[in-house]
Amino acid sequence: MISKILEKRIKSLYTKKGRLKNNSFIIEGKRSVLTAIHNSVNIKNIVLSKSFIEKNKNLATYNKYKTSVVDDKCFGQLSQVDSPPGILAEVAIPLNNKISSDFPLVYLDQISDPGNLGTIIRTCDWFGIKQIGISPNSVEFYNPKVVRSSMGSHFNMKYLGTPSSEDLNRFNLIGADFNKGKDINDISNPKNWALVMGSEASGISKTMNKKISSYVKIEKFGKGESLNIGVAMGIVLHRFTN
Amino acid sequence: MISKILEKRIKSLYTKKGRLKNNSFIIEGKRSVLTAIHNSVNIKNIVLSKSFIEKNKNLATYNKYKTSVVDDKCFGQLSQVDSPPGILAEVAIPLNNKISSDFPLVYLDQISDPGNLGTIIRTCDWFGIKQIGISPNSVEFYNPKVVRSSMGSHFNMKYLGTPSSEDLNRFNLIGADFNKGKDINDISNPKNWALVMGSEASGISKTMNKKISSYVKIEKFGKGESLNIGVAMGIVLHRFTN
Repeated sequence: MISKILEKRIKSLYTKKGRLKNNSFIIEGKRSVLTAIHNSVNIKNIVLSKSFIEKNKNLATYNKYKTSVVDDKCFGQLSQVDSPPGILAEVAIPLNNKISSDFPLVYLDQISDPGNLGTIIRTCDWFGIKQIGISPNSVEFYNPKVVRSSMGSHFNMKYLGTPSSEDLNRFNLIGADFNKGKDINDISNPKNWALVMGSEASGISKTMNKKISSYVKIEKFGKGESLNIGVAMGIVLHRFTN
Repeated sequence: MISKILEKRIKSLYTKKGRLKNNSFIIEGKRSVLTAIHNSVNIKNIVLSKSFIEKNKNLATYNKYKTSVVDDKCFGQLSQVDSPPGILAEVAIPLNNKISSDFPLVYLDQISDPGNLGTIIRTCDWFGIKQIGISPNSVEFYNPKVVRSSMGSHFNMKYLGTPSSEDLNRFNLIGADFNKGKDINDISNPKNWALVMGSEASGISKTMNKKISSYVKIEKFGKGESLNIGVAMGIVLHRFTN
């Protein structure tokens, strides 16, 4: 059984206010929870459904933590996933390392779509980028949809935050834009780089554009109006890291 | 005002059954409708909200078609978008050209996520790929979520369908896999190619793997378990078309 207090707490963590108050967020699914455990994340609570327990014999991994078991119906009410995975955890928002211009940074200027931000975190993780910055007024890193689409990659990051102007200025800021700059194929091994991408609706903001020293673009061969921001990011990161 | 019959028809087009029966689908938003008009697509109905009419003075473009005006509340009920754009259209599902091995093909083996399929159509459009095949049991091309995330790119395609085995065999089938094959950086200008990607959950199916002649992979530098299928597709297409 689960206490009313824990039930309320979990539901509150799906809101920004609740996350700020408790400094924790919810992850769902076996893979995400195991990634968190593997990364020695501070896990505050694990909730398991009865079906999950029946299907998973080896529960010792989870039982090291504060664990509650609920029936499937109750789990369904706690879950935000269409097919509830039977396991979720409350984990502490990881502490950030200091941002360092010795390592690359991805900077997102006013990103608003949580699925896109999650995909970008996942893509950064693949290419070994461990610092992601977002401007104020962007979607939050620990929004449940961001967390779901990042597939556990949050825990492999060293810095997820909103860097100061001074911090940004220590990088070689390269903007990705559809209309200007050098073809991405003609760029090799930039140094000290931060890749800046803008929101899908309005691109990079004026304030940010003033800071940017150079631009890269992805040549278009067809008719499409734009690329999805996560796809564009993947293409640029593949080039920058190879 | 809108007739009960049209209202029922529009709602039915959000279901697979309705689309099959009427051979048409719904597009929402000004950009998508204008792309359809620009591509001389067969537009059967346009529905506009009162707010849309107030904000858009030049309505001549739309008035060439069968147009209905509804109040904003009614539009909200017809729309599937969180912020209803005030314009939607029923358009005929375009006729396919014959699949041709003289042009590249993207083939998706059991793709199930509509957002991913839409992003892939949009990415193909950017890189000038005009033929996309999906296996049986994939999500449909004209599913509303696919249509929304493709941002009008459906209309720039020449072939969207399920190719026969014979059709597929006429291509040089290249599988994209995370674990095997040549690094994508070491491949240049393949001829006569069809790029095959599998579902995120289970990859390329056994049946399909038997047909594939070679594989490409995207080198991993970090810890991520996988790349989003749309992102991976973008990276491969960028390489194949450059």
